[in-house]
Amino acid sequence: MNARVFVTLKNGVLDPQGKAIEGALDSLGFEGVDAVRQGKIFDLKVNASSKEEAEAEIAKMCEKLLANTVIENYSIELRD
Amino acid sequence: MNARVFVTLKNGVLDPQGKAIEGALDSLGFEGVDAVRQGKIFDLKVNASSKEEAEAEIAKMCEKLLANTVIENYSIELRD
Repeated sequence: MNARVFVTLKNGVLDPQGKAIEGALDSLGFEGVDAVRQGKIFDLKVNASSKEEAEAEIAKMCEKLLANTVIENYSIELRD
Repeated sequence: MNARVFVTLKNGVLDPQGKAIEGALDSLGFEGVDAVRQGKIFDLKVNASSKEEAEAEIAKMCEKLLANTVIENYSIELRD
């Protein structure tokens, strides 16, 4: 089963990488950029007997490793 | 206008980060994981007079900064 996990910073959490990219885009001449926030995606191939089992297992992976749940949100998209 | 940019490694390009995560998940006891590929997302707020203009401008940003087009693919999702 294929799944995609999205990990993004929670609202209000400062994003220094995003700020750096904003600055770089500005210096490259891109003027119309108001904000940039960077996040991560993980494309997983997992063995599971059902979508529910896959989603539950992946949620555990997020809680334990893929996301820092203090400052990050995660969402799971099962793809087939 | 809000947009999300997805940057992922091209097929066939080795993903050492993904391999490291696979190993870590395995050592945490997650057995059913066949593959992990890591990518990036950029959530952008841009000023543009139309969706077409926004998409064209963001594509330029990807080509110049957000993606290494030698080894990465990018896709743009306009959100409103």
